[in-house]
Amino acid sequence: MGSKSKKIKKLKRQLKDLRAQLGAGDGPKVSPLAPMSGFPEIPAIPGVRFATVQAGVRYAGRRDVMLAELAPGTAMAGVFTRSATRAAPVLDCQDKLGGDSSRGAAIIVNSGNANAFTGSNGRQAVAAITGQVASSLDVPETRVFSSSTGVIGEPLPHDRITARLADLKAGLSVDGIADAARAIMTTDTFPKGAYAELSVNGKPVRIGGIAKGSGMIAPDMATMLVYIFTDAKVNQAALQSMLVRLTDRTFNCITVDSDTSTSDTVLLAATGQSGVDAGNDPGFEQALLGVMTDLAQQVARDGEGATKFVEINVTGARNDSDAHRAAMAVANSPLVKTAVAGEDPNWGRVVMAIGKSGAEADRDALSIWFGDIAVAERGWVSPQYREDDGAAYMKNQDLKIRVDLGIADGAATVWTCDLTHGYISINADYRS
Amino acid sequence: MGSKSKKIKKLKRQLKDLRAQLGAGDGPKVSPLAPMSGFPEIPAIPGVRFATVQAGVRYAGRRDVMLAELAPGTAMAGVFTRSATRAAPVLDCQDKLGGDSSRGAAIIVNSGNANAFTGSNGRQAVAAITGQVASSLDVPETRVFSSSTGVIGEPLPHDRITARLADLKAGLSVDGIADAARAIMTTDTFPKGAYAELSVNGKPVRIGGIAKGSGMIAPDMATMLVYIFTDAKVNQAALQSMLVRLTDRTFNCITVDSDTSTSDTVLLAATGQSGVDAGNDPGFEQALLGVMTDLAQQVARDGEGATKFVEINVTGARNDSDAHRAAMAVANSPLVKTAVAGEDPNWGRVVMAIGKSGAEADRDALSIWFGDIAVAERGWVSPQYREDDGAAYMKNQDLKIRVDLGIADGAATVWTCDLTHGYISINADYRS
Repeated sequence: MGSKSKKIKKLKRQLKDLRAQLGAGDGPKVSPLAPMSGFPEIPAIPGVRFATVQAGVRYAGRRDVMLAELAPGTAMAGVFTRSATRAAPVLDCQDKLGGDSSRGAAIIVNSGNANAFTGSNGRQAVAAITGQVASSLDVPETRVFSSSTGVIGEPLPHDRITARLADLKAGLSVDGIADAARAIMTTDTFPKGAYAELSVNGKPVRIGGIAKGSGMIAPDMATMLVYIFTDAKVNQAALQSMLVRLTDRTFNCITVDSDTSTSDTVLLAATGQSGVDAGNDPGFEQALLGVMTDLAQQVARDGEGATKFVEINVTGARNDSDAHRAAMAVANSPLVKTAVAGEDPNWGRVVMAIGKSGAEADRDALSIWFGDIAVAERGWVSPQYREDDGAAYMKNQDLKIRVDLGIADGAATVWTCDLTHGYISINADYRS
Repeated sequence: MGSKSKKIKKLKRQLKDLRAQLGAGDGPKVSPLAPMSGFPEIPAIPGVRFATVQAGVRYAGRRDVMLAELAPGTAMAGVFTRSATRAAPVLDCQDKLGGDSSRGAAIIVNSGNANAFTGSNGRQAVAAITGQVASSLDVPETRVFSSSTGVIGEPLPHDRITARLADLKAGLSVDGIADAARAIMTTDTFPKGAYAELSVNGKPVRIGGIAKGSGMIAPDMATMLVYIFTDAKVNQAALQSMLVRLTDRTFNCITVDSDTSTSDTVLLAATGQSGVDAGNDPGFEQALLGVMTDLAQQVARDGEGATKFVEINVTGARNDSDAHRAAMAVANSPLVKTAVAGEDPNWGRVVMAIGKSGAEADRDALSIWFGDIAVAERGWVSPQYREDDGAAYMKNQDLKIRVDLGIADGAATVWTCDLTHGYISINADYRS
């Protein structure tokens, strides 16, 4: 091979490497942090049927609308974004939560357009969609919950969705949850699902859930849509308080970029079809926590451009809320996140983030671990710490950073990912 | 030229472009947002002399320590980081502010090592440096102010600094301020200075200042060192309250990455050598505001990896503090900052940032302008807005985003820069 041909080959290889760093090329690949096992097996959950279609809301050649039909008697709980500029579907869902459950319900979700910041047009689009779903499935309109995710500020072409309602109804199936998880994706690189089964008084109870989200992820709530279904029987008030309690330990403990969506929604539907009253069952709450934690971590693992998954654990805080604040400050710090991306054991940036968090902290009581490696103790570098050990640890894909504030007993754990060239590439031209 | 040679040339050009995007190559270039006029002419300020040396604290082959000697009678004011993990020099400066000014003072600053999170070693290093500067210049140790900037968590080799004190003293000159601005740089791509002169009762008064800072920039305070010198005569209490008041309108209104340093320091020295009592002179306060605004904007213009300078102006808020909160949420949003980098007029992300800010907002009262272009009015896209106009505007290097919340009369202006591949490149391997 001639020297020029060799040179061309070498230059092409260098170009390819740089393009990969920039996240360019054939669009986003699946996150390297996606669960190795792929989308889980989720069996049918009695009382729930799913359907999906290609409505062409924005994306071509993929399913972008999902419908879930819920049996009469289904109790609905929900938690939503606290944004002051909440989207029309969110406001509509909030109004409908406590309604009469005797006649069944439905959830309809589209991707591609968030129907957010669209003024009165937004409310009209929600009314058109939920009204026609209600007629189609013969459920009250006050029991039809909708979500929209995608671009903000453009009118939702709701006709494209309602035009496909007959096909959606015809396609309803107890086995459609995996397709539903794919239909609600936007910049997600993999569909997200989780499942748990438990036995209460000898009877089986099932909990299955799906989620979408990979950017604009931060409490309160994460930029995220989550739908969880169970055949447990739980009254609405108990279901709602359980969902709020567990959301604080799961979806409010993840962050990708500190940005908060105008559309965040978590809906939990309990059909009661198992016949098992699980409202006060600690095993049920534990299993639900497991499903929610799994989904929350999958969202952080699909963080835009992520190459590392990071668990941040803060102990020794004045109280749990201070611990959460300190942990989120570390998780959201661009300087910590870029250090993680660069595999740099830069614990000084962790100190910086704790310092700015607003949590009570005493510099000379702080200790920090990267994994099991004691990096800093009581305000200074650990005597036995070797930079090489820290650098070797940072090469792992899943990392744990622990900070003990040395003040009291408050503790919290949050999950995040690193900040990479991929995040910039994805977000500097999402719309254009 | 043969086709292979052409191909090699083309591939090399593509490689160069991509490397530039990644910020790789010959280290950081000067920010494209640096003032076209370069470092300003700053004449001598009576009562202040400067010196700089290469002490090799961390960097080789460049000056990394600056000393400023201040005449007897100099009043000192200071504003510092509110981080709970403040560095040793910051704590020491805070203790010394109100001291007796009859015998003169000094400021000594090193770059390369922040002397932060270094336990009792940090306090000892400060005491060693300030003690020996005091002996060398024959000023009280309680009037020697020190700052350190650079890596956190490593002991400061203070012997390297004190070993050069004789040379520093010998080099003191009224003309050294430009070299001083260079000596305090870390990841800065250009030295920062500003100057104003005014006449009070027919007598000239001079105000000159220098700053460093380009990352870890967010109030309270920005990650920044600022030293301002004037020959005005102002008593310490008046000088301090003026500095606090103006810092809230300048250095607390810039952000690069929302991260807050453990070492932020603004010191203002008034030597009184002009003989002009300016404590209550509105012209003096206005001129000082000008110098501080200029320095603050230069820090934002040197934001790590910055390619665009953005002014964010919020009006119509419940009060000024709500307006500031909303403006900072926009300025710190990674999604807004990447949209700016991508020249994408993505006003939906501005709505998102306002929504999450915690400021009182009503979706249907919000209006947004990019420059003079009305983008959104009262909750929805402006009828006359054309995406092409927005896209053309975003190609400018200096951008203005204005948001009117439509609620009351609160207003605030903040300055920031975009978030680019360059930021990631600089911070993913700052230390390694």
